[in-house]
Amino acid sequence: MPPPFKQLSTWQETAKQMRDHRDSTLAALESPIPGLPVQLPLNVTHLAKEILTEEEIKLTESLPETLMAELATGALTSTKVTKAFLRRAALAQKLTNCVTELLPERALKRAAELDTYFAQNKKPIGSLHGLPISVKEHIGMKDLDLNAGFVSWVGNTAKADAVILQILWSAGAVFYVRTTQPQSLMHLETSSNLYGETVNPYNTKLTSGGSSGGEGALLGFNGSCLGIGTDIGGSIRSPAANNGVYGLRPTSFRLPNAGCLATMLYEEHVIPVIGPLSTSLEGIRLFTKTIIDAQPWLKQANLLPLPWKEGDLREKDASGKTTLRVGVMWDDEIVKPHPPVLRALKKVVDKLKEIEGVELIDWKPYKHDLAWEIIASLYFADGALEDKVAIAASGEPYRPLTNFIINDNPYVKELTITELWAWTAKRDKYREEYMNLWNSTANDGKRPIDVILCPVGPGAAPPLNCAHYWAYTSQWNLLDYPALVFPVTQVDPLIDLKEERYQPRNEKDAYNYELYERERYRDAPVSLQLVGRRFDDEKIIQVLDFIQQHVKLPFQK
Amino acid sequence: MPPPFKQLSTWQETAKQMRDHRDSTLAALESPIPGLPVQLPLNVTHLAKEILTEEEIKLTESLPETLMAELATGALTSTKVTKAFLRRAALAQKLTNCVTELLPERALKRAAELDTYFAQNKKPIGSLHGLPISVKEHIGMKDLDLNAGFVSWVGNTAKADAVILQILWSAGAVFYVRTTQPQSLMHLETSSNLYGETVNPYNTKLTSGGSSGGEGALLGFNGSCLGIGTDIGGSIRSPAANNGVYGLRPTSFRLPNAGCLATMLYEEHVIPVIGPLSTSLEGIRLFTKTIIDAQPWLKQANLLPLPWKEGDLREKDASGKTTLRVGVMWDDEIVKPHPPVLRALKKVVDKLKEIEGVELIDWKPYKHDLAWEIIASLYFADGALEDKVAIAASGEPYRPLTNFIINDNPYVKELTITELWAWTAKRDKYREEYMNLWNSTANDGKRPIDVILCPVGPGAAPPLNCAHYWAYTSQWNLLDYPALVFPVTQVDPLIDLKEERYQPRNEKDAYNYELYERERYRDAPVSLQLVGRRFDDEKIIQVLDFIQQHVKLPFQK
Repeated sequence: MPPPFKQLSTWQETAKQMRDHRDSTLAALESPIPGLPVQLPLNVTHLAKEILTEEEIKLTESLPETLMAELATGALTSTKVTKAFLRRAALAQKLTNCVTELLPERALKRAAELDTYFAQNKKPIGSLHGLPISVKEHIGMKDLDLNAGFVSWVGNTAKADAVILQILWSAGAVFYVRTTQPQSLMHLETSSNLYGETVNPYNTKLTSGGSSGGEGALLGFNGSCLGIGTDIGGSIRSPAANNGVYGLRPTSFRLPNAGCLATMLYEEHVIPVIGPLSTSLEGIRLFTKTIIDAQPWLKQANLLPLPWKEGDLREKDASGKTTLRVGVMWDDEIVKPHPPVLRALKKVVDKLKEIEGVELIDWKPYKHDLAWEIIASLYFADGALEDKVAIAASGEPYRPLTNFIINDNPYVKELTITELWAWTAKRDKYREEYMNLWNSTANDGKRPIDVILCPVGPGAAPPLNCAHYWAYTSQWNLLDYPALVFPVTQVDPLIDLKEERYQPRNEKDAYNYELYERERYRDAPVSLQLVGRRFDDEKIIQVLDFIQQHVKLPFQK
Repeated sequence: MPPPFKQLSTWQETAKQMRDHRDSTLAALESPIPGLPVQLPLNVTHLAKEILTEEEIKLTESLPETLMAELATGALTSTKVTKAFLRRAALAQKLTNCVTELLPERALKRAAELDTYFAQNKKPIGSLHGLPISVKEHIGMKDLDLNAGFVSWVGNTAKADAVILQILWSAGAVFYVRTTQPQSLMHLETSSNLYGETVNPYNTKLTSGGSSGGEGALLGFNGSCLGIGTDIGGSIRSPAANNGVYGLRPTSFRLPNAGCLATMLYEEHVIPVIGPLSTSLEGIRLFTKTIIDAQPWLKQANLLPLPWKEGDLREKDASGKTTLRVGVMWDDEIVKPHPPVLRALKKVVDKLKEIEGVELIDWKPYKHDLAWEIIASLYFADGALEDKVAIAASGEPYRPLTNFIINDNPYVKELTITELWAWTAKRDKYREEYMNLWNSTANDGKRPIDVILCPVGPGAAPPLNCAHYWAYTSQWNLLDYPALVFPVTQVDPLIDLKEERYQPRNEKDAYNYELYERERYRDAPVSLQLVGRRFDDEKIIQVLDFIQQHVKLPFQK
């Protein structure tokens, strides 16, 4: 049992209590991480080699499918794997500030149980037998604090594990670390008054992204190979992209999100989803399949009874030939992506052109500015009242990006029911139009496109407090399309030159253009996004797998 | 093209214009229905024999599957079938007031086209080739008036066919009649200032039910064998039950409802659904399967890509044996059903007990009063503002049941967004609890129950303006469970004696108890309801088919 957290007389004391607790969980490791030098390079990803053992490095840099295979045959014990990840997570915390607490006692007890089970039964307990999984803090874990990033919510204890954790537990998972999230959960970064800022292990002046930014930084540093995040506007995909790992925003009502704490839990205008981040595509697939195979719709009433789809999900042409039709969206025509993003996209497109049976079509964005207006108006239909109350209750200050999205956001307004319906009407009309556009790619006897390939954001991970532009990710939340992020390359100052004499299209474009300086973004991972139609979750995983069989990703520098 | 309807100087004139138009469409038949005697029996179902030809009677009393089979082989022409249904619908109008307009010109043109197609191609155009289908008025039909029962909305012309009509059209349907609905669409009866009251062909002092009450009366009189209604609280099931036909409220987001006109179109707190009424279970099945096979999710963005499920949908026991487990709910413990309903339920249960492999379990209702409180609070989250505006705009008076559900309903209140979310939270909690209850029927190594068998209402069709109690149907709207209504028997004053010395449980129960007088309900059809879990639409159809293979329904008097 953790210490009983409580509200202290100032928000600063309450927050310090949480950081002290976090530090104590790092100190409780069998072999704690030693003090680090004050001066560190901006890219800290190489430091693991100097501090961890060779075996720890080998284990934590293994792909999740490799670990699962070895755990399933008994070639590895869960205890050994869990210990390695605990140490690497502790180091990730010291370098990027991504952890709210380690769970060495719980995790090692669980790992030992699983090892005993294996020894006695000569078989794994489930498909994730013994695998350590990291968890974003606001996903409730029985008997642990559950504050969702608000100081005033410290002291709230989860009564039960979130449904998704119950399922993963049954499949043999080991939960060993909880990760940071921003105040309000509505940043594409991770900055709170409880824990401060989570930074990017590839360049610590840049953000890890958010709101699942603790997961992002942890996975980017190989402190986890499989983690759980949530996404209502990009919160799985931004951190996955910023840290060079995979991340899936599934279609809504497929994976169970009951037991997560947040404001506005019962709004149904824009559905928040839960999903995986992983160091491999196979990790994403196994995670998602494991949960859907467990029939989560019998555990959470609003989920859909859609079994996991197998087989080649691409349809056949009139001629009987299966092809992959990819719509390529280079730019949303509002904010132009930075040079490294366009380079990554061009490189992937060039490779795709070489693959037999792949057809590329230009996908013209359709009113993505209107899409943002709609989703932004629906996000805080209560005028952000719940958030304001949760922040005011402790007296904690607004973090810069909370101000940006709540106080400086022209679309935040308490709606009447009539106004709410007017916005849902616009949303539904927009969804119809986008569906029709997608349908319209079926011509000349061809099927519609299978997927859209596009940027994840208008650049790689931005400097802290600058992630202002959501629309490359929130677009797909509004449409409720599944979207899968994957690593492609890293920013290379030698080749990713700033476009000179660019005339920004508008204020947002100018802001984004100004942000880019090639040295500033050095080493930042560059990722892309593959988008499917509603409920094509399996299909986009399958398509990316097909692409990766032909194109070695990420590209080496 | 119809005459261009418009708003006239008084609501009475506008309404008269619509009735005159309706009458003109009846008069336009090749062989119009002659004048009827002023004095008619209460039960008018037998009058068809006196007015229609033998062939018309034979055709209109054929089951839809029989007609489809003969249309598909060319044994019948669509023109012949359509003409018969046009005449019988005209007669139904004269007897029950269930029609807003006949469409002889459109329908016979369409039928002729289909007959030509068949003659040329020697095959049907689709699974519904040539079958006449009736349509509730608020389901938009291109170039025709679309008023949803409000006088002030007369003059609004549908720009396109509703999505469901487009799909049925492609499958070969013939739309030949549009049917009545109540003011506001929120009655379990059918009473408007445009057309007055629609009555029950089995007993014209009783209601046809609603809001799809035009469909109900029309089908009850065999003026249609397959029709389309909509349901947010019982609006398909009440008229199906009251008129002794089948009706399905599907799970939401399976069948396309885009193109229907109503107030509060973009609320998403309680989802309105569209579905079939039919004189046979096979009609229900073929209708639903035809639409789902057409992949409606590519035509309406919020639908789910759930293909039609085939095969035996009941799961096997641990022992490998397939059984049917039926939960029987006798009473919701708030309002006790009238004697004929309990007799019907007992008779079906007694028959089920005799079937090998059927297991019956008592299903105890779980807080159905709370369920009503929640759904009633969510129905008019805008305080019924849209309805009030639509009514006030023409000056038409409130119909008695509009007053009942809007002005006298303690749960109608304009909600703030925060209050709305509080209600959706209660709704979701209730859904979780009901799901868990259903899960809990799995015990002793058995599976959970397959279905719940229960009343459709607290009695057979009530006298006009008395359908106050929705909770036997709205219960399943709140839970979004599919529910299928089927005919069992008719009220028989000789055996359905009123319970003497009954002590009503509460005010609603007293109201319902007082309503019942056995002579008053003479001949009224008595139906029951089979309820499944979310998305078990195919399963409940399959289960009822299984039951009907063993139990001859409806029971003969």
